[in-house]
Amino acid sequence: MKTKGKVLVAQGGGPTAVINQSFVGVVNESKKHTQVTKVYGAIGGLEGIINEEFIDLTAETEHNLEMVAQTPSSGLLSCRVKPDRDYCLKCFEVMRAHNIRYFFYIGGNDSSDSVRIINEHAADQDYEFVAVHIPKTIDNDLVENDHCPGFGSAARFVASAFMGVNLDNRALKGVYIGVVMGRHAGFLTASSSVARVYPDDGPHLIYVPERPFSVEQFLKDVDREYKKHGRCIVAVSEGISDKDGTPIITKLVDEIEKDEHGNVQLSGTGMLGDLLAKTVKDNLNIKRVRSDTFGYLQRSFVGVVSDVDQQEAREVGERAVQLAVDKMKDGSIVIKRIGNYAVKYELYPLETIGGKTKVMDDKFLNEEGNGVTDEWFKYVRPLLGSGLKTPTRVRAEKVEKIIRKDQ
Amino acid sequence: MKTKGKVLVAQGGGPTAVINQSFVGVVNESKKHTQVTKVYGAIGGLEGIINEEFIDLTAETEHNLEMVAQTPSSGLLSCRVKPDRDYCLKCFEVMRAHNIRYFFYIGGNDSSDSVRIINEHAADQDYEFVAVHIPKTIDNDLVENDHCPGFGSAARFVASAFMGVNLDNRALKGVYIGVVMGRHAGFLTASSSVARVYPDDGPHLIYVPERPFSVEQFLKDVDREYKKHGRCIVAVSEGISDKDGTPIITKLVDEIEKDEHGNVQLSGTGMLGDLLAKTVKDNLNIKRVRSDTFGYLQRSFVGVVSDVDQQEAREVGERAVQLAVDKMKDGSIVIKRIGNYAVKYELYPLETIGGKTKVMDDKFLNEEGNGVTDEWFKYVRPLLGSGLKTPTRVRAEKVEKIIRKDQ
Repeated sequence: MKTKGKVLVAQGGGPTAVINQSFVGVVNESKKHTQVTKVYGAIGGLEGIINEEFIDLTAETEHNLEMVAQTPSSGLLSCRVKPDRDYCLKCFEVMRAHNIRYFFYIGGNDSSDSVRIINEHAADQDYEFVAVHIPKTIDNDLVENDHCPGFGSAARFVASAFMGVNLDNRALKGVYIGVVMGRHAGFLTASSSVARVYPDDGPHLIYVPERPFSVEQFLKDVDREYKKHGRCIVAVSEGISDKDGTPIITKLVDEIEKDEHGNVQLSGTGMLGDLLAKTVKDNLNIKRVRSDTFGYLQRSFVGVVSDVDQQEAREVGERAVQLAVDKMKDGSIVIKRIGNYAVKYELYPLETIGGKTKVMDDKFLNEEGNGVTDEWFKYVRPLLGSGLKTPTRVRAEKVEKIIRKDQ
Repeated sequence: MKTKGKVLVAQGGGPTAVINQSFVGVVNESKKHTQVTKVYGAIGGLEGIINEEFIDLTAETEHNLEMVAQTPSSGLLSCRVKPDRDYCLKCFEVMRAHNIRYFFYIGGNDSSDSVRIINEHAADQDYEFVAVHIPKTIDNDLVENDHCPGFGSAARFVASAFMGVNLDNRALKGVYIGVVMGRHAGFLTASSSVARVYPDDGPHLIYVPERPFSVEQFLKDVDREYKKHGRCIVAVSEGISDKDGTPIITKLVDEIEKDEHGNVQLSGTGMLGDLLAKTVKDNLNIKRVRSDTFGYLQRSFVGVVSDVDQQEAREVGERAVQLAVDKMKDGSIVIKRIGNYAVKYELYPLETIGGKTKVMDDKFLNEEGNGVTDEWFKYVRPLLGSGLKTPTRVRAEKVEKIIRKDQ
């Protein structure tokens, strides 16, 4: 006999372009199961639970839900709370009062850990309760997952952005530094490599947190590429650190602002890019040096999305409900890659995912620590989805000179 | 008898997403006229002319040219040279040597001025020569034009970006400041207003160079909107200045870098956004304050383009050739709006456009200087083109509270 009761779905942490696909996947799949009496959504992640801010998604129209699925960023709103035991007790009290039996939390590794804590607590109370963590993160850093929902769309944004700045930089030469999100993992920054269509296209240099960043080597690299191409495009993760593990940006910021998880705030400031640009200007005698910090645009830009990412984000939501409601199984949904290119979904124990961070495999990064390998292209390309626009160059022949033959 | 000879086309100044539409329009239309012997492209704007760096576009395949037309940024590369009389003499010498009789220069008001100087010089030499300036600028600041090719696509990027950050900021509350390109004209920044779909959507405040910026008023505005919505999104032009006309950013930058036209470099640095964010943090006791500087992404992002902008950019190129080759007329192509919404193209004397800057009409800006009017929406909306994705919200009803009834 399966437990009759309500489904609760919530979204935690930073938004992605496809996080609502997962949420809508949970809602639609839940409606198919007779033991689900209603589907509630918590407004604002765990904060919504503790404050009992629920909405009844069973009453939402299917059409509007599909429109929400196409909309980036957490439609149920989010939070960055890290619950302690007391917090969990309170959340549980609320869920129990509403006869919630199935809980789905869409988020990163912090969110996965929250699910684990709540779930353990429910077991202690001997309350029949199933909780499944549904993965999402543009950082692509959840362990066991081949990749994470949200990453493909953000990677598509980063690749498209670098295609554009590469064209721009070809037209008006100089050095361009693009700072990409990524605290510990360089996946998103490395996705800039997809912008290289013609052999001399940028980014010419890619720096990720997985490799120690040396300012001296950086300057040598830029100097070499600039001399070679008459221009140089650099992609760099916001989280790059020196060989002692000190983030380059913390050397600059007067007051280090930390969030509740003890993470240093790296986004929402243009400082790292400005510093690197100044370093190039001061040391290499190159006049036109520019930097952009892609910031929040890369995780919720409306209109840039990977269809592969959308589909998988939808499926992890659906799959979570199938496993929880039909099989009464707790855990974290994990994406595994099979063949080239297909995926399957598995359920891992919650403690596998929580609090851990996956970084880029060595095989994806070149020896010099300033670029990516062919293995990386094979890995990343399918995730960006179909219909990616790529640049085309004029290829007409040069006209023979009449006046300036000596040039 | 029409003059038989070659067409030369070149692109100057900053790139746009549709500047190659104009260039391909020139090439394709030129091929239809029997008095055109060949179509050359200058590589790198005027620098390409003075250095005699020409390619023969008559030999380019039509298919590849159409692919180039879809590619953002100047396919013939660009320059930021402002020619003096001596520079023009040299350019003219090169063009004459190649029997170039028709010259098309795609660019902003600086480029228009370059065309005027070269054209006057050709007239002095009694050499039959027709030169037409083809408008482009994401800043939308060419006089006499209702709007400029390149603006609609950049505006679409800015609107889409603000839709995304609005969703992001709704999910994880705080203050967000997005810095948009625009030295003297606020058109692009004001386009952020299209991101407002639901009544409480951001941007809640919009500051443009047309209105003096007061830090005190800015803080009052942010405080009020933050109290009202629990969050606040601000769109601000990089060129905002105080009541004495001093750009806010020049108060920060140690060394002001100027380009050859004497313009202060405002792009390629995140400083203005960082300063404004710090000001809010220091004065309003709001913890989560973020800023992004959209930088170069907004003018050449691959995959975000307005179809209306594409079509018009193509047509100004075609129209320029028709007027120059068939009618032997010099001038600058100007876009006029008729009805709601259609356009017609006119030819204005070159001296009308060169060196002048159009700014936003008073009727587009509210009295408080922190937002736009309905007139503005009517103006800008058609330019963004069709198929713009917009966000959808979940609208399910709230569930009655059981435990926290008092909240």
